[in-house]
Amino acid sequence: MDILKKINSPFDLKKLSLSELQQLAQEIRNYLLEVVASNGGHLAPNLGVVELTLAIHSVYSSPIDKIVWDVGHQAYVHKLLTGRFEEFKTLRQYQGISGFPKRSESPHDSFGTGHSSTSISAALGFAQARDLKGEKHEVVAVIGDGAMTGGMAFEALNHAGHLNTKLTVILNDNEMSIAQNVGAMSAYLNRVRTDPLYTKRKEDIEYLLKKIPAIGSKVVKVADRVKDSLKYLLVPGILFEELGFKYFGPVNGHDINELRKVLQNTKHINKPVLVHVITKKGKGYPPAEKNPDRFHGIGIFDLKTGELCKKTDVPTYTKVFSDTLVKLGEMDPKVLAFTAAMGEGAGTSDFSKRFPKRSFDVGIAEQHAVTMAAALALEGFKPVVAIYSTFLQRAYDQIVHDVCLQNAPVVFALDRAGLVGEDGPTHHGVFDLSYLRHIPNLTIMAPKDENELQHMLYTGILHNGPVAIRYPRGCGLGVPLDADFRPLPIGRAEVLQKGRDLTLIAVGSMVDCAVKVSRLLTQKGVACTVINARFIKPLDAETILEAVNNTNGVVTLEENVLNGGFGSAILELMAEEGLEQKVLRIGLEDSFSTHGNINTLREIYGLTPEKVLQRIEEEFSFKAVNKLNKLAINLIRRNR
Amino acid sequence: MDILKKINSPFDLKKLSLSELQQLAQEIRNYLLEVVASNGGHLAPNLGVVELTLAIHSVYSSPIDKIVWDVGHQAYVHKLLTGRFEEFKTLRQYQGISGFPKRSESPHDSFGTGHSSTSISAALGFAQARDLKGEKHEVVAVIGDGAMTGGMAFEALNHAGHLNTKLTVILNDNEMSIAQNVGAMSAYLNRVRTDPLYTKRKEDIEYLLKKIPAIGSKVVKVADRVKDSLKYLLVPGILFEELGFKYFGPVNGHDINELRKVLQNTKHINKPVLVHVITKKGKGYPPAEKNPDRFHGIGIFDLKTGELCKKTDVPTYTKVFSDTLVKLGEMDPKVLAFTAAMGEGAGTSDFSKRFPKRSFDVGIAEQHAVTMAAALALEGFKPVVAIYSTFLQRAYDQIVHDVCLQNAPVVFALDRAGLVGEDGPTHHGVFDLSYLRHIPNLTIMAPKDENELQHMLYTGILHNGPVAIRYPRGCGLGVPLDADFRPLPIGRAEVLQKGRDLTLIAVGSMVDCAVKVSRLLTQKGVACTVINARFIKPLDAETILEAVNNTNGVVTLEENVLNGGFGSAILELMAEEGLEQKVLRIGLEDSFSTHGNINTLREIYGLTPEKVLQRIEEEFSFKAVNKLNKLAINLIRRNR
Repeated sequence: MDILKKINSPFDLKKLSLSELQQLAQEIRNYLLEVVASNGGHLAPNLGVVELTLAIHSVYSSPIDKIVWDVGHQAYVHKLLTGRFEEFKTLRQYQGISGFPKRSESPHDSFGTGHSSTSISAALGFAQARDLKGEKHEVVAVIGDGAMTGGMAFEALNHAGHLNTKLTVILNDNEMSIAQNVGAMSAYLNRVRTDPLYTKRKEDIEYLLKKIPAIGSKVVKVADRVKDSLKYLLVPGILFEELGFKYFGPVNGHDINELRKVLQNTKHINKPVLVHVITKKGKGYPPAEKNPDRFHGIGIFDLKTGELCKKTDVPTYTKVFSDTLVKLGEMDPKVLAFTAAMGEGAGTSDFSKRFPKRSFDVGIAEQHAVTMAAALALEGFKPVVAIYSTFLQRAYDQIVHDVCLQNAPVVFALDRAGLVGEDGPTHHGVFDLSYLRHIPNLTIMAPKDENELQHMLYTGILHNGPVAIRYPRGCGLGVPLDADFRPLPIGRAEVLQKGRDLTLIAVGSMVDCAVKVSRLLTQKGVACTVINARFIKPLDAETILEAVNNTNGVVTLEENVLNGGFGSAILELMAEEGLEQKVLRIGLEDSFSTHGNINTLREIYGLTPEKVLQRIEEEFSFKAVNKLNKLAINLIRRNR
Repeated sequence: MDILKKINSPFDLKKLSLSELQQLAQEIRNYLLEVVASNGGHLAPNLGVVELTLAIHSVYSSPIDKIVWDVGHQAYVHKLLTGRFEEFKTLRQYQGISGFPKRSESPHDSFGTGHSSTSISAALGFAQARDLKGEKHEVVAVIGDGAMTGGMAFEALNHAGHLNTKLTVILNDNEMSIAQNVGAMSAYLNRVRTDPLYTKRKEDIEYLLKKIPAIGSKVVKVADRVKDSLKYLLVPGILFEELGFKYFGPVNGHDINELRKVLQNTKHINKPVLVHVITKKGKGYPPAEKNPDRFHGIGIFDLKTGELCKKTDVPTYTKVFSDTLVKLGEMDPKVLAFTAAMGEGAGTSDFSKRFPKRSFDVGIAEQHAVTMAAALALEGFKPVVAIYSTFLQRAYDQIVHDVCLQNAPVVFALDRAGLVGEDGPTHHGVFDLSYLRHIPNLTIMAPKDENELQHMLYTGILHNGPVAIRYPRGCGLGVPLDADFRPLPIGRAEVLQKGRDLTLIAVGSMVDCAVKVSRLLTQKGVACTVINARFIKPLDAETILEAVNNTNGVVTLEENVLNGGFGSAILELMAEEGLEQKVLRIGLEDSFSTHGNINTLREIYGLTPEKVLQRIEEEFSFKAVNKLNKLAINLIRRNR
């Protein structure tokens, strides 16, 4: 890594020859492989943009010129070239550098990303800021063809074409977002890439024009006019041209020289420009080229074989979801599956192989997925919409307005709920209980383990109204899976054990923690009632109130922000019932959680049994006070 | 209304001659004018689609064929033709018929709408349901050119083009959404409508082709090929064709005969079709034709003059916001304004007239607006994003991910927060406190009156972090407006009065109610502390806790759902502080609120002073109990 080591800023690239840049590309690929193999991360997208990033940083002058990376999981090369060579080894580790662009990390990270399709909006904002300030620098958005299917990317294109300000959008077309791309836009790009007609037509017409005898001024005039309009009509990127962009491309995204030339050319154009670049995901690492989907985001793996290092027999929640969905699909022909370009991640691929006609991959288009599912549900189907907790945020309005207002029986499967670990604050699914709980008609569940997930999905399919099921990233608890599905009574909790002192009410991933806390408390002579809430909404008022009435304090446990979350629901219930009992709410405080190993994060944010125990001991005193409290409370009650 | 009276279902239209249909169109216009003049409602959009709706219902067979009306405010004619002639007089009134399509109202209302850009997604869902069931009926989405700028419409087009199923999208192009349309798509449609080049080019090339001497088989072959591709290349709707739609148009949207012919023709096409129809908003009523913006949604007005009947000297919150924004714009050149196609409604038009370069109308594209504003805020600008509470739901993810995670100082101005009255459940802004309160870094305020709104907006501009200000629809309280703006200390509440018995803590529109309740309680010998919360987040813990400690009960008042709302925040605060005081939360229960006069709704949902008083009297008993309670609580406290 002779060259890479010496790159302290993008400015250093400007001194390099083309052959040095090509050598640098190889060094970067080696280093990417080394670090991602040992830390896990987004490999294939970054291998695909090595040359493109080198071209960008050798043509533009970041941070004066602003580069916005859409989604941002392809910004590793950018990080390496902007003074983070050493820190790159700490990629995605706690207190190490982030797997996504992050403003607090570097002035070269002009806009933080993580979710898809935001880059053109952000770049247009930067371009307008530049214009208003009378500055002159460049603004560049780098967006994948997958992200281009997201509605807000179109909203931004539409607005940029209208404002007609200087702005470069680099469309990084790797013929897939995370999974194989779908949609008419993708088909369109494919035609542009491969359809010889686009150039053929132009050649044809030019050939014919030459054959026309130049007789009469009318023929000459018309021929001139046709030549003019041909230039406009027969460019391959007419769709973008019609939206007000000047189109360049397609450009070979692994040819640094060609890329640099095109980018240089666009610098002189004072209006929105779209550069269509063709790249190959996983480029330069055969296992990733062959299987870019699996190497999109990957755990620690063996560089030589491309195999994942850590394997476990315990299935992930995603796997159990996937298997259950297929079984339900077999049981009931009305069951459908929706994914927003995350078939593998969200566990709908097996279903879509088995039932291709009953399966919909809509592209990165969560909003559309939810509303389309609502219509199918109203027609008697049972759509299961599998979207990560954090990405479903984008369809909040559609959940309210199209699904719940019409009481359409859509089942939402929110994978990656709670802390997700290394992907960090843009990806933690820690808001869902709060953004869903206040929506009328919605039933919300969270399973305590992977076996309960099966039953909940089944229950969701049977329920005649909208349902959300949230479950964590990663492996289940390793419990046996029941062979048959069992409907859970809606709004009923499960009492795992009874005790006289304290009531622990836990949601999903925190039920196991609550059980462990209870064991630790037992050792100290404190007996707990432990409740697996199962339903965040509707709450099992009867079970919860009975437990609360028979103990001297309540602890709620959830892997969600505390504001408006499950604990808050318990407070609301108790307030309605006039119970004035002490409640300690365990969950995430009112701030964004950082990235890092999930166990480290749980420790830091106080979600481990030991930390929870500590909080309980600080807040409650299990001595004579109890009786006095009880006396006092009973006194109040009698006086109502 | 000889003909209209006899139309009991769309089937009746099929028997009418063209001239009868034309007469019916006139009868419908007259009736629309009569009812909307006396009830208020969406006038201009409905006057614009009279012929289109007649054509649709005479060509298709609703409800077997499914018609989805995007946004739905243009569905009045549809309601008149589908058996709701009599009930139409109750339009938008409490327990009368809704101003939007509503499934519970009629089987002809296949999908409930209210928010923009959902129709193609819903229609695609219906089309897939049909295909999966092996049915054959038609599915039609009617969408305006404004709604077409919303990202999810593009997501749906993209997916529909991919699925390639039979589906008709009628693009109702009236050259504006609510305000004058913006965006490259709009410019594109305008070119299609007006650019003679589109047809000229085709004529030109055909003319030249004829001039080519047919010598040599190559020339003939090439000429044939060119003719083929011309058919494809030179259609005006190439943008839609590229996305997989068969384009028809433009069609005169006031010519029933032409419309019927085109719609009939599309019936035989087994793939997605887009019919581009040109209509005129307000058609047939000169004041509305002249000023379609003002007649988009209008209150009760005088048919003869087109003037609003009820005028008041008290300014609306929107007006005060608008005036304040202009003043702030004069004070600080960094202040910018954003609207999502609602410049008039959301009060940014005056600012945009005064500062056109600092003002952005992004189209119906809330997501893009929020992210673009985030980028401008990070560059040191002070963007004020004015979007109705209910429409901002669509940018929830962008508020979390782009604004708050990066702590970008964007000011959100949420007009129409709380109940909005006649527009009903799709438009009530009753979720914002719950969908915003759990987002880290966000400051949330609500003014008690229009004067405080001024100061809050000023405070928001000064604050170095994201801020949301929510305020109600309609007139202020008529209080005097301070001449100078005053920054409010962040997170400090205002104590309006002190009393020993009960603490009333109210938010925004409910502060006035709390004051009135307090007066009623005083008459009964109960003394209240009344707090204007001002900040929903951060809460003024000090002020609130002091008041709670010095009284015997707490009542929270908010025009928001109770789940996760302001009262819930108070419960959380009290739980954290270990206060076990009785709290009664006044707000909206966990269901969607209906439409109707806003005072009627407040009465029904228990938000009037009298109703609140009644609830307080049911829940609290102001006798000897108080002292006992206090004693008991103090006992608990001492034992901690």
